[in-house]
Amino acid sequence: EVRRLAGELHEADLATLIENLPSDSRPKLIELMGRDFDFAALTEVDSNIRDQIFEELQTRTVAEGMSELEPDDALVLLEDFNRKEQSEILEAMPAIERVALQRSLEYPENSAGRLMQTTLVTAPPFWTAGQMIDFLRDAPEEDLPESFFEIFVVDPAHRLLGTVFLDQLLRVNAQAELGNILDTDRRRIDVDEDREDVARLFQRYNLISAPVVDRAERLVGVVTIDDVVDVIREEADEEIKALGGVSPSEELSDSIWWTAKSRFLWLFVNLITAFIASSVLGIFQNQLQKMVALAVLAPIVASQGGNAATQTMTVVVRALATRQLTKLNTWRVIGREVFVGGLNGAIFGIITGVGALFWFGLPGLGIVIAFAMVTNLLAGALGGILIPLALHRLRIDPAVSSGAFVTTVTDCVGYGSFLTFATLWFGLR
Amino acid sequence: EVRRLAGELHEADLATLIENLPSDSRPKLIELMGRDFDFAALTEVDSNIRDQIFEELQTRTVAEGMSELEPDDALVLLEDFNRKEQSEILEAMPAIERVALQRSLEYPENSAGRLMQTTLVTAPPFWTAGQMIDFLRDAPEEDLPESFFEIFVVDPAHRLLGTVFLDQLLRVNAQAELGNILDTDRRRIDVDEDREDVARLFQRYNLISAPVVDRAERLVGVVTIDDVVDVIREEADEEIKALGGVSPSEELSDSIWWTAKSRFLWLFVNLITAFIASSVLGIFQNQLQKMVALAVLAPIVASQGGNAATQTMTVVVRALATRQLTKLNTWRVIGREVFVGGLNGAIFGIITGVGALFWFGLPGLGIVIAFAMVTNLLAGALGGILIPLALHRLRIDPAVSSGAFVTTVTDCVGYGSFLTFATLWFGLR
Ligand SMILES: [Mg+2]
Ligand SMILES: [Mg+2]
Ligand SMILES: [Mg+2]
Ligand SMILES: [Mg+2]
Ligand SMILES: [Mg+2]
Ligand SMILES: [Mg+2]
Ligand SMILES: [Mg+2]
Ligand SMILES: [Mg+2]
Ligand SMILES: [Mg+2]
Ligand SMILES: [Mg+2]
Ligand SMILES: [Mg+2]
Ligand SMILES: [Mg+2]
Ligand SMILES: [Mg+2]
Repeated sequence: EVRRLAGELHEADLATLIENLPSDSRPKLIELMGRDFDFAALTEVDSNIRDQIFEELQTRTVAEGMSELEPDDALVLLEDFNRKEQSEILEAMPAIERVALQRSLEYPENSAGRLMQTTLVTAPPFWTAGQMIDFLRDAPEEDLPESFFEIFVVDPAHRLLGTVFLDQLLRVNAQAELGNILDTDRRRIDVDEDREDVARLFQRYNLISAPVVDRAERLVGVVTIDDVVDVIREEADEEIKALGGVSPSEELSDSIWWTAKSRFLWLFVNLITAFIASSVLGIFQNQLQKMVALAVLAPIVASQGGNAATQTMTVVVRALATRQLTKLNTWRVIGREVFVGGLNGAIFGIITGVGALFWFGLPGLGIVIAFAMVTNLLAGALGGILIPLALHRLRIDPAVSSGAFVTTVTDCVGYGSFLTFATLWFGLR
Repeated sequence: EVRRLAGELHEADLATLIENLPSDSRPKLIELMGRDFDFAALTEVDSNIRDQIFEELQTRTVAEGMSELEPDDALVLLEDFNRKEQSEILEAMPAIERVALQRSLEYPENSAGRLMQTTLVTAPPFWTAGQMIDFLRDAPEEDLPESFFEIFVVDPAHRLLGTVFLDQLLRVNAQAELGNILDTDRRRIDVDEDREDVARLFQRYNLISAPVVDRAERLVGVVTIDDVVDVIREEADEEIKALGGVSPSEELSDSIWWTAKSRFLWLFVNLITAFIASSVLGIFQNQLQKMVALAVLAPIVASQGGNAATQTMTVVVRALATRQLTKLNTWRVIGREVFVGGLNGAIFGIITGVGALFWFGLPGLGIVIAFAMVTNLLAGALGGILIPLALHRLRIDPAVSSGAFVTTVTDCVGYGSFLTFATLWFGLR
């Protein structure tokens, strides 16, 4: 009964069902359903739960399930195993599927080669639309991809000449030759291309699918939008987590130990920067003792600078990721950020100055904090843009590392400028 | 010459070309190209540049250009204008296009109705695959959508029975009736549905396109993945910006004044919270004066708590946006975060305690800061999860507002616990 019901579910719903089962029933359900279980569902399951399921399943079950999948989906699952397990599973698979997967595994991780689907429909340019349709009607089900949107027209050396979308094929006369109706202007993807670049290409040109070619321009596969959507989501996820100081691979289902461990490094880096910032306060111990209001107000300058710098940094990191920040506009954006920093610095300098004046009744304190605020917001703007730009040039992900540096700059400049100005104004020492 | 070249470009490349022209040449190029200019390019142009172009173009040019577009693309452009301009443009359009656009404008902003394409291919269930193909061959070009992936099978009342994908249509026998090969299991979108929910549906079920129905289950349009990809990207963009304290509509091309103004509000909120945190320090002025090391070390406790809380908050905000945080796992995640906070609090308490001991040579200071660190990381974990959850319940976007609240908690608890423990331990007052 369960078997019948589960067999009718969409793979995404089956995945949710599995996730909500008690952990020891999950592998049981899969073994019980046998051939009826669509392994595609496992690509949608939380990766921790998937690991746990795979530990229980027999290699034969896994190999059988995977050979039913399109190679790109099978690859997603195969990437979960270590080298030794991978070869055991591959050996238990039929030769055709095994060879296809082994070839895909040779492409670098995160490349188009790993993302692409390798079953596709090709035709020579001299076929007519009518012949093409007849071919599709007569082709055995297993020779065609599970779903497809375009026909790739290739020359005898399997080099891509262009593509014919199915709606185009259906609009034209039965006698029209594919070579005359093909779209030669299709964006091609290099098999080694990074999947982030692939995603940007799909977004830019509103693509549904795109042919993948090797160095000799030979057609080797097709990347489809449904897999690109996953890439876009994962990349956005990673960027958000990186900016929040969380490891990209952290999941809601991770254990306490794993989570604590993965967050430790970022917090440790932050602790070091916090000590560095406090050492700036340490330099001014005498002044803090003589005028304790300085100790009370200093964090306001640091915090305001840190927040302004984070705004700038967020915009810059985002613009770098989407390739909106180019050589052409970098200087304009730097200029804009510095002006905005100065402008908001001046406004918040005045507001904070008035606040400090009323709080402690010392006009000098208001003037000192106002100038420190302008200084720190300017420093924040510069740090907020130059640090991510520099990391990007050094090929370090600016989303991951900018935050710690940027707030260290604003903490140190905030404390340093405020206490230096105060020392000079009040003649402390 | 320019005209011929520009006419051959993909709309995305044409958009880049326009963006890189001097600002007074942009409307000139469009007027010059006339009918050859594809207004779809304008949907890909930076919105500030688009506003500037539309100010210069004649209403007639805009109306003509828009009526060449699919309604969903025309709508993207039309949304840039105010009500009065919208009706002027609509009046200058041919009746058919005008009516279609007016109907779309009636759907709420950010709804599926605004996102959908309204030209689609429908057929009755008794048509055969062969009849369908003949129909498509003979249909005048303007009756068919620019591109399409599926045929919608409807009853005489235009209620959706199911869909036939083009690859399915091509695989079957010419005599097969559409009613027998249709996929009835298609996810339907309600015309009023929020576009974020539409995006989640597409992601979950790996959809390429999905039918949109009205309350009476009548087919009214189709949402296609290329437009959903834009939604996914925009939503991720908004979330990243919101977490960084930047307005979702801020663009790299915004002016200095506009940028400064849009960032002001968040900084103002932060300034208030910074004053609140400093007022906690203010309560302990006597103690700070007696032991200036407390003023030097207090920011470390606050900063470490703030960073740990931001990690928790990032994970929670993300999980709320992706609907991974459900009633089923909320308690588990709260428990996990508190444990992780306690664990990392203990570890960093010890590290910081040892650091403080060596810096100031006071063992008591090490013990006090260690306990304050544990307290603050626990408070941060609780704040980091409960604040976004509460905001979400109140239907306030947690990405926008959590940060200010969360760091206020860790600043206040950090300063308050550290200075209270120090007061007790050292008998200060
Ligand atoms: Mg499948
Ligand atoms: Mg994991
Ligand atoms: Mg697009
Ligand atoms: Mg695929
Ligand atoms: Mg997939
Ligand atoms: Mg990345
Ligand atoms: Mg820091
Ligand atoms: Mg167009
Ligand atoms: Mg998916
Ligand atoms: Mg569209
Ligand atoms: Mg579009
Ligand atoms: Mg949103
Ligand atoms: Mg704050």
